[in-house]
Amino acid sequence: MIRVGIAGYGNLGRGAEAALTQQPDMVLAGILSRRAPEEVRPARGDTPVWRWEEAAAHAGEVDVLLLCSGSAQDLPEQTPALAKYFHVVDSFDTHAAVPAHFAAVDAAAAESGHVALISCGWDPGLFSVLRAYGGSVLPAGGGHTFWGPGVSQGHSEALRRVDGVVDARQYTVPMEEALEAVRRGAGDDLTPRQRHRRICYVVAREGADRARIRREIETMPGYFADYDTTVTFLTGEELSARHGGLSHGGCVLHTGETADGTRQHMEFRLALGSNPAFTGAVLAACARAAYRLALRGESGCRTMLDLSPALLSSRPPEELRRALL
Amino acid sequence: MIRVGIAGYGNLGRGAEAALTQQPDMVLAGILSRRAPEEVRPARGDTPVWRWEEAAAHAGEVDVLLLCSGSAQDLPEQTPALAKYFHVVDSFDTHAAVPAHFAAVDAAAAESGHVALISCGWDPGLFSVLRAYGGSVLPAGGGHTFWGPGVSQGHSEALRRVDGVVDARQYTVPMEEALEAVRRGAGDDLTPRQRHRRICYVVAREGADRARIRREIETMPGYFADYDTTVTFLTGEELSARHGGLSHGGCVLHTGETADGTRQHMEFRLALGSNPAFTGAVLAACARAAYRLALRGESGCRTMLDLSPALLSSRPPEELRRALL
Repeated sequence: MIRVGIAGYGNLGRGAEAALTQQPDMVLAGILSRRAPEEVRPARGDTPVWRWEEAAAHAGEVDVLLLCSGSAQDLPEQTPALAKYFHVVDSFDTHAAVPAHFAAVDAAAAESGHVALISCGWDPGLFSVLRAYGGSVLPAGGGHTFWGPGVSQGHSEALRRVDGVVDARQYTVPMEEALEAVRRGAGDDLTPRQRHRRICYVVAREGADRARIRREIETMPGYFADYDTTVTFLTGEELSARHGGLSHGGCVLHTGETADGTRQHMEFRLALGSNPAFTGAVLAACARAAYRLALRGESGCRTMLDLSPALLSSRPPEELRRALL
Repeated sequence: MIRVGIAGYGNLGRGAEAALTQQPDMVLAGILSRRAPEEVRPARGDTPVWRWEEAAAHAGEVDVLLLCSGSAQDLPEQTPALAKYFHVVDSFDTHAAVPAHFAAVDAAAAESGHVALISCGWDPGLFSVLRAYGGSVLPAGGGHTFWGPGVSQGHSEALRRVDGVVDARQYTVPMEEALEAVRRGAGDDLTPRQRHRRICYVVAREGADRARIRREIETMPGYFADYDTTVTFLTGEELSARHGGLSHGGCVLHTGETADGTRQHMEFRLALGSNPAFTGAVLAACARAAYRLALRGESGCRTMLDLSPALLSSRPPEELRRALL
């Protein structure tokens, strides 16, 4: 059994915890938390909870540590720091900062002789993998990513920063006409407005000027001005009751012409009942790959682009060939 | 530049030849044919054409050889034989015979110190890869493959074996209701009839009993009896004019529940204007992977399940991370 630890016990940490119960060759070794251990309630009462500052003392009890904190503040510091003591897997998803994060993690992991996998999830992660297949097989073509229908955390936070907004939730929805255009090979000139629309549910402070809030949202540069945006006001109770879910999804489309002049279209789609549960499931599968790379004596930073599909699977190679080829 | 050879110059060989022109780091070294060289007409007049029996003499001119013959008769013999002299890639697609083919090719390639990739294409190939991702990330779930709309060679040949049939083409078409059921997580009990239907275009010999032909087709066990099958008679000219295309496609769906009780759905879809052009494009990308494995000193047989996405790409790892993660 692969002994897997979880660092950070929010939505993603609970998703990873649930995923480990479904993997036949993994066991949850313990949870590392910045909260006091008695405040953390794992799904099973017998799961050890360790203090963050005592992480190094538990290195011998963990084969692979899944880092389940946020990309904005935590992972840039935590992943290199914990790679000193553990083989680690994170889901770092700040796209523009991936090269810097990779360099920092690679340096720490190479020095300590550990394996580190970063940016494991669905985007980045499985979507990156599918973009790589698309570009490699159909170099005379282009890839397009659509997100949703699902909640965008960044856009929801942008709504909450508007004066007079108490709480909010923003759904990103792909435009079916844009998907059809890409499938026809005509997607290159699509504007942001043609690709996605944005649906906002907003709880306003009592007495706030709703017309002003709506105007500020609809004209907010970078977030909403370039999209068809709808703003609906509701109460805090309604927001929790109707929009508390964590579903998400999206698709990667790659369309190209082969040199014989025919069009070839590849499409990968995810419809996720729970974004953190699915991301946790990807982290769990990647833990197996990290464990195997470590057994081979490898060290340093990798991403899902460096992992063969077989490395992620619990099934032995000959069984995979017989069942999947 | 990677010097790529092509063995076998039918539809798939021409697809591979076209694909090489789109890869920035590959050049077509020559074509190996069982026909007399003067009967082979490559797309470019300056492409060398070599006699099959003189293959070994050209080993020094080829980095990777793409085998483009048929799986039924040719590849079981050709791939092990040519792996004695070349790093090879084939698209062996007789699913049930993959383990035996793997063993034979692995023995030959390991002994001669070459890399051999088998079963590279879309099914087996990319579909196998997606099944592996699905099973690894969502172990409490199931995968379903649907083929078409597209021409099935095996079923077309079965039609031609019916007495009185001169020529025929059979389209396999997935049932939209079945796809929807799988997406809802309710696909496990679907019968063959509920999954696909079969559309047959048949050219009958003059004076043949069409009612008998139709009955024989609709009741043919293993091929048509378990499906809703439509049979349309037409002339040889109509068959060539309307049904001479090589388009195909299909999808792999994987639906599972994570342990939190939410449903997660993964779907990979191909819509191919030309089946041999796309399969040739996959072979070309796999040639790069074979070349790189050989540079690392590896030998023996592999499949696409053993290849990381980055191995297939012409772009360097740091560029892939920056662009795709």
